[in-house]
Amino acid sequence: MAVSARECARRLQTLSSQERSKILLDIADALEAKEEEILAENEADVAAAQQAGYENSLISRLAMKPGKISSLANSVRVLANMDEPVGRILKRTELADGIILEKTSSPLGVLLIIFESRPDALVQIASLAVRSGNGLLLKGGKEAKRSNAILHKVITSSIPPTVGERLIGLVTSREEIPELLKLDDVIDLVIPRGSNKLVSQIKAATKIPVLGHADGICHVFIDKSADLDMAKRIVLDAKTDYPAACNAMETLLVHEDLVQTGGLNDLILELQEKGVSLFGGPKASSVLSIPEANSFHHEYGALACTVEIVEDVNTAIEHIHRHGSAHTDSIITEDKEVAELFLRQVDSAAVLHNASTRFSDGFRFGLGAEVGISTSRIHARGPVGVEGLLTTRWLARGSGQVVDGDKEIVYTHRDLNLEA
Amino acid sequence: MAVSARECARRLQTLSSQERSKILLDIADALEAKEEEILAENEADVAAAQQAGYENSLISRLAMKPGKISSLANSVRVLANMDEPVGRILKRTELADGIILEKTSSPLGVLLIIFESRPDALVQIASLAVRSGNGLLLKGGKEAKRSNAILHKVITSSIPPTVGERLIGLVTSREEIPELLKLDDVIDLVIPRGSNKLVSQIKAATKIPVLGHADGICHVFIDKSADLDMAKRIVLDAKTDYPAACNAMETLLVHEDLVQTGGLNDLILELQEKGVSLFGGPKASSVLSIPEANSFHHEYGALACTVEIVEDVNTAIEHIHRHGSAHTDSIITEDKEVAELFLRQVDSAAVLHNASTRFSDGFRFGLGAEVGISTSRIHARGPVGVEGLLTTRWLARGSGQVVDGDKEIVYTHRDLNLEA
Repeated sequence: MAVSARECARRLQTLSSQERSKILLDIADALEAKEEEILAENEADVAAAQQAGYENSLISRLAMKPGKISSLANSVRVLANMDEPVGRILKRTELADGIILEKTSSPLGVLLIIFESRPDALVQIASLAVRSGNGLLLKGGKEAKRSNAILHKVITSSIPPTVGERLIGLVTSREEIPELLKLDDVIDLVIPRGSNKLVSQIKAATKIPVLGHADGICHVFIDKSADLDMAKRIVLDAKTDYPAACNAMETLLVHEDLVQTGGLNDLILELQEKGVSLFGGPKASSVLSIPEANSFHHEYGALACTVEIVEDVNTAIEHIHRHGSAHTDSIITEDKEVAELFLRQVDSAAVLHNASTRFSDGFRFGLGAEVGISTSRIHARGPVGVEGLLTTRWLARGSGQVVDGDKEIVYTHRDLNLEA
Repeated sequence: MAVSARECARRLQTLSSQERSKILLDIADALEAKEEEILAENEADVAAAQQAGYENSLISRLAMKPGKISSLANSVRVLANMDEPVGRILKRTELADGIILEKTSSPLGVLLIIFESRPDALVQIASLAVRSGNGLLLKGGKEAKRSNAILHKVITSSIPPTVGERLIGLVTSREEIPELLKLDDVIDLVIPRGSNKLVSQIKAATKIPVLGHADGICHVFIDKSADLDMAKRIVLDAKTDYPAACNAMETLLVHEDLVQTGGLNDLILELQEKGVSLFGGPKASSVLSIPEANSFHHEYGALACTVEIVEDVNTAIEHIHRHGSAHTDSIITEDKEVAELFLRQVDSAAVLHNASTRFSDGFRFGLGAEVGISTSRIHARGPVGVEGLLTTRWLARGSGQVVDGDKEIVYTHRDLNLEA
């Protein structure tokens, strides 16, 4: 299955950009043409999930709402019309007289995407794979089995025989996953989309690179010179806009000077009013009389957070390095020097000044589609768009050059980008 | 040790570019000041290796030749003066009014480099690590033990106490390697520099990303429309310039039309004259009366190669995909269309037209220092320069923005690079 996906992907790569766009437009049309069938299968999944007594949040993620199919079809059309991501020339150098080197973007190869209940993820991922010239193996949640099967069928039937339907394989049984995770010579990247637990399990079980993040322990540090109204607005947004998101604030660090001025108390009251449960580090729990947190390395993923009082920006940075997950951290301060120190030193995928951690997201960062958020330092870091599905190839066009011990060749290494 | 390296690296990152350059200049001066001591230790290693009966090629790699120290010192000075690789702004976007996002280059963190006999590799790697703001753990070959120890001492004594000597750790016993390879939460990248066997062993033993290549099975395909003089020149260079190199040709594929025209015979004679042993695929071994190769997936690393006759460029590409190692492959042809087909379709790190595979190298590609050649598709592919030691961070500077369900914020996603 993985080998077929690679072979089909190689054929997909030989197509022109227009031909790949055409496949996407066909997929969009097919989705709309088969809307009734898709919704019927989705309803069957929803009914089965209700009968099985799944929780409401899962059922709501599973159900395709009215208008969902046409909005999905339209997002596929947007991808069809986006700038071609494959074959872009990233760098162009004259190596020596008559030999030109290009660094170009190229597909990674074969992706394995493991996702949970939302069936619309299948459409997004499959169309991103086609756009970026990659083969794909998909494993969806068992509660969306029928929805995934029909969406897979509709999509693959729009793939021309010159490429082959097996470009996108649907893995149906959970038992196949451990086998697939062993195929580090055929699968190039695994992208788990789901709970932290899913990501951790997959990372532990494979040598294939995994794009994702196990933890999102994001901090907001309020400096003594912060605008306290702004701080309040940002902290509330970072915690309450979507508490289950990986970019939600989990730990609030506050400069000790704000204890005296009462700034901290105001903020705490406001958080409590919004229903946020507070747990303190050793200092904050005694100053604020709140229960002590068990660990600073904790992701609540709910309306709760840890609070601690720190001496200054340096102590805050140390705390973040020691207890954080290098995902997203923000400082609130009016002092530019302190802000720049924080931005320069905090070793996280995204570091923000006077803005909510919730901005750390592919759509908000303007990356178009979001493939995932990576806390790995290798390949892609932070919110990842389509470039996370690409690698590079070096192409050189010469006119008979040989190295011959570098005796006669004169390297010019002229940067041709600058001259474009 | 790895944790200390990370802490020191974080302090190194807080220095200005000038301060990091200054460390490199101090290292260069220290190397020259301690030349006698270094050479004495190196001679002791060489004497011990001779006594232990090591082969000459190893001893020649081990011995530091006259002038080596000053040439090393000068290459460190070149790095000191290179453009700062850290903190470069790769992309700049206005997200919304008053909030600007930057994608910047940043150090990976902690590197583990495992290298074999050449002690000069230690100096190159250590200075690259300082230049790129990374912490480093080094494990050299035991035959270079004394040379490595003195070089490590000279280098670390030039690192200021504000950063800490433990920025660069020297691992002295082989037994520590398996323990280090388990530290995937502290070590960010492993770079093995040595034999294919070393690389394969390390890849098999760790979950940390490994930058390197286990095989270099490079192909040259001579199309029917090739300029045969050029083909001869390139094939000889690709095989004989440095047969042990990973970018040397291992398999020669020849278009079947060249059998009739006698082009193939000429080439074969020339290769044999230069002392290259030839092994054939099923077709070539019968046409040319040469012994049959055991496998097409074979790296000789010596004056020997496999030859096979193929129908056309498509069969050549299939052969390369099936049997190659996706390292470097070259086509010789005067037919531009055929060349472009080959360049577009061959899924290798470097693909060349009318040029020797030997060009696939960091120095020849103009990357400055070469960190290694990667056949992985993730992070860095092909010859890798200092950018292989870097990752990115997203930095956003706002003025109080919150997400609040994206209800009020107007995303502009204005590309500020284009306006620079």
